[in-house]
Amino acid sequence: MVEDDIALLKQYQKEIILLSQSVALLHWDLECYMPKEGSESRAEQIALLSRLVHEKMISEELSSVLERLRKRDLQGDDGVMVERVYHDVMKSKKLPPEFVEELSRVTSLASTAWEKAREENDFKLFEPHLKKIVKLKRKEAGYIGLPGHPYNSLLDTYEEGMTVEELKPKLENIKKWILELLSKIKDSESYKNQELAFLKQEFPRQAQIDLNIDVIKRMGLENKFSRLDLSVHPFTTRISQGDVRFTTAIRQDPLFSFLSTIHEAGHGLYEAGLPKENKFTFLDEIPSLGINESQSRFWEIMVAHGKPFWKFYLDRFKEKIEIDNFNQWYKEVNFVKPSLIRIESDEIHYPLHIILRFEIEMGLIDGTIHVEDLPSIWNKKVEELIGITPENNREGVLQDVHWSQGCIGYFPTYTLGSIYAVQIYKALKRRFPEIEEDIEKGDFNKIIFWLRENIHKIGRKKLTKEIIRDVCGEDLNPEEYLLYLNKKYSEIYNLT
Amino acid sequence: MVEDDIALLKQYQKEIILLSQSVALLHWDLECYMPKEGSESRAEQIALLSRLVHEKMISEELSSVLERLRKRDLQGDDGVMVERVYHDVMKSKKLPPEFVEELSRVTSLASTAWEKAREENDFKLFEPHLKKIVKLKRKEAGYIGLPGHPYNSLLDTYEEGMTVEELKPKLENIKKWILELLSKIKDSESYKNQELAFLKQEFPRQAQIDLNIDVIKRMGLENKFSRLDLSVHPFTTRISQGDVRFTTAIRQDPLFSFLSTIHEAGHGLYEAGLPKENKFTFLDEIPSLGINESQSRFWEIMVAHGKPFWKFYLDRFKEKIEIDNFNQWYKEVNFVKPSLIRIESDEIHYPLHIILRFEIEMGLIDGTIHVEDLPSIWNKKVEELIGITPENNREGVLQDVHWSQGCIGYFPTYTLGSIYAVQIYKALKRRFPEIEEDIEKGDFNKIIFWLRENIHKIGRKKLTKEIIRDVCGEDLNPEEYLLYLNKKYSEIYNLT
Repeated sequence: MVEDDIALLKQYQKEIILLSQSVALLHWDLECYMPKEGSESRAEQIALLSRLVHEKMISEELSSVLERLRKRDLQGDDGVMVERVYHDVMKSKKLPPEFVEELSRVTSLASTAWEKAREENDFKLFEPHLKKIVKLKRKEAGYIGLPGHPYNSLLDTYEEGMTVEELKPKLENIKKWILELLSKIKDSESYKNQELAFLKQEFPRQAQIDLNIDVIKRMGLENKFSRLDLSVHPFTTRISQGDVRFTTAIRQDPLFSFLSTIHEAGHGLYEAGLPKENKFTFLDEIPSLGINESQSRFWEIMVAHGKPFWKFYLDRFKEKIEIDNFNQWYKEVNFVKPSLIRIESDEIHYPLHIILRFEIEMGLIDGTIHVEDLPSIWNKKVEELIGITPENNREGVLQDVHWSQGCIGYFPTYTLGSIYAVQIYKALKRRFPEIEEDIEKGDFNKIIFWLRENIHKIGRKKLTKEIIRDVCGEDLNPEEYLLYLNKKYSEIYNLT
Repeated sequence: MVEDDIALLKQYQKEIILLSQSVALLHWDLECYMPKEGSESRAEQIALLSRLVHEKMISEELSSVLERLRKRDLQGDDGVMVERVYHDVMKSKKLPPEFVEELSRVTSLASTAWEKAREENDFKLFEPHLKKIVKLKRKEAGYIGLPGHPYNSLLDTYEEGMTVEELKPKLENIKKWILELLSKIKDSESYKNQELAFLKQEFPRQAQIDLNIDVIKRMGLENKFSRLDLSVHPFTTRISQGDVRFTTAIRQDPLFSFLSTIHEAGHGLYEAGLPKENKFTFLDEIPSLGINESQSRFWEIMVAHGKPFWKFYLDRFKEKIEIDNFNQWYKEVNFVKPSLIRIESDEIHYPLHIILRFEIEMGLIDGTIHVEDLPSIWNKKVEELIGITPENNREGVLQDVHWSQGCIGYFPTYTLGSIYAVQIYKALKRRFPEIEEDIEKGDFNKIIFWLRENIHKIGRKKLTKEIIRDVCGEDLNPEEYLLYLNKKYSEIYNLT
């Protein structure tokens, strides 16, 4: 009976999801509250639950249910659900258990080694681990075996359906455009004379927390289904449909906590808005990292770096620090200044950091770049793209956690997110031409509603490509993104 | 090979423990941090993981390993380990998996319902949940099927080996004695004229928190392996060997938070002191709730309600509130005054609260008391034993969390713990006759060391009965307890 098979398929999804949600809580607690000496057992708790998830994914019973159901050519949500589970199961089954176990062992050692290497600024400590990881990821690409560039098989894990063939020319075009724009900015008087006036002030811890709480409330993240905590690196996680959590960190920079909270709250809103009717199925998921990032960047950049937003929030900041010039404040919020560190980079330099990593990852996977050459290749590329040179590997090749965790193919999704965010904001303005008047009043209700209806509540019933096409009336469009950057920064830096 | 069997047995224990630790975190988070709307999924997460624990416990492979190993008549820790696992497995095998899962789901939902019912002072909100729980617990008693009163099968879960037949006459004797002592106290001039002078003062929230942190540090509970949080009802849980958590609540009563913190920290010290060499085995456990409670009561009552303790802590309290008379303060700390609330009760009334619950639980399980009649039965019994009447169910039948969690048979262990605590304190004074001089200096190191060596690090290598006999040179001895109460309160209330 089809009904029995559907019920069994749902039971499998539910158990996999409940186990994964428990893993999510174990991770969240590890970052936010766990006493130090709990770490060894925590690793074992997470490893066991992850193994149980994998065992369920590759179970024979699940595969035969899927096979039977695929022959039925089901319509509606059930049909899509079968395809989504089938996609994930096939992918899991392509990786031999010994491989999964080895990758897990290698990356857990590599994470510790990376932390030490970064702390001691010594790439050699990380090098042998990264070599193993690259070797395994090349093997993984072989197991997955998607057509085209071997990198496609890794990229697909984070951005289903995206390929090197589509992405590479687009990123190359972005690089060319941004380098041109940057050189115009750097030649401008406005850039040469720029200085921070407001953002170097002390910003009391409690004031930062108060403003965080204020903005997430306006963004619709109520206490009854979400919470904000502190952690070293801000992140968002979903423990269940009614339980979304995100974190921030308090730094000296008066804007860091506020903007990172808005960024994570953007993810949080998405996680909280996924389709209720598909609870405990693979449709109750975000379809890719790129579209997930589109939501955080939408709020962080398109809304909270914009003029209308500061027409509302400036007064709130004025209560806490001295600001007496709107235009100077707006410029400081959008300050262009080369940074060696990706996560501290402005909107213009950020994609260059991503392109640098993408080019290196491609080389590592197709064998044209060797791990031992990474520090020098990294530094050469930073000089070429960002125009400054790292003084050490800590602020160079060792700055990101991703590779130590085996995440290769992840970085491009940051820039995909930024591009989607621009396209989505444009679509929003088409739908509500007066929307910026709402933003000026601190009223985000229309935005929240529109995002939920058009993106959040679709979950994984559509792929990212389809959602973007439906919402924006076009595919991924870097031109739109470049035009936006050009217009915004030409104005800020008085370019002609 | 015996070695292979031992290895397999340890693997089973490790996976069961890792899953149980994950459940402990899911529970802790539910009480401390979870957004309200996460409760439904949380119930499902806990139910699934509990089912997986149960499935492992009743697996055929584990049973055959145990059977083979029991024939070997192993000595040392391995021999005891085999017996402990065998005991628990036999018990688990009596409960069908569907039953375990249902109980877990019902109690998770009941916990949320209880909180709401208590908040809104509406027993009707909790009643249907409690009915389900009582029905399931009666079913459970039937499955377990220990000889004697059906309540024995529930009691044994919390206090291995204890029976209604042993406990009931002891509790009846305690009730008789205490009611006599109470009537003497109430007839005394000292009682009739008693008034709070100091404990009615405002005690700022931050002062309460500061003193909590001060005392747990002195008790040896360092941040690196423990943490203190806030929850409605204080509790202690262990997430792993290096991760023990306990909670408190801030109330108006200046002593509530301080003493409840000490109580929970007593549990916490025990949990943190279990045998390191038996990690991930069933020997790394506390053998019963009674002995667990002996540790919390030891610290809360025997230490922190005593004169030596206040010779040290009074000065610290004087920094926060006005106190100018040691004897009056000591009397107020040990103030005898009927309270409707168990956890706010003094040492004399406390066991009466336990006896009340014991009698009601026995009735619920043998079918002579019905859930819908509970509010009136409760109030009648309170009047009879405590001498006052609850004005509402919140301070009556809805005050305790236990039933909502399916814990029936648990309450008597509080009084067992109080009795053990008196016996253990007496043994401590025999070993270190000068120990109260240390307490007067706020130095608990000898006590911590002695408890760890003689009780904590034994874990479950011995049963409670054996540990008490080894430490105290005698079995459970309520006479010792009654003599102690009599002596202490005769002095405080100048009885002749």
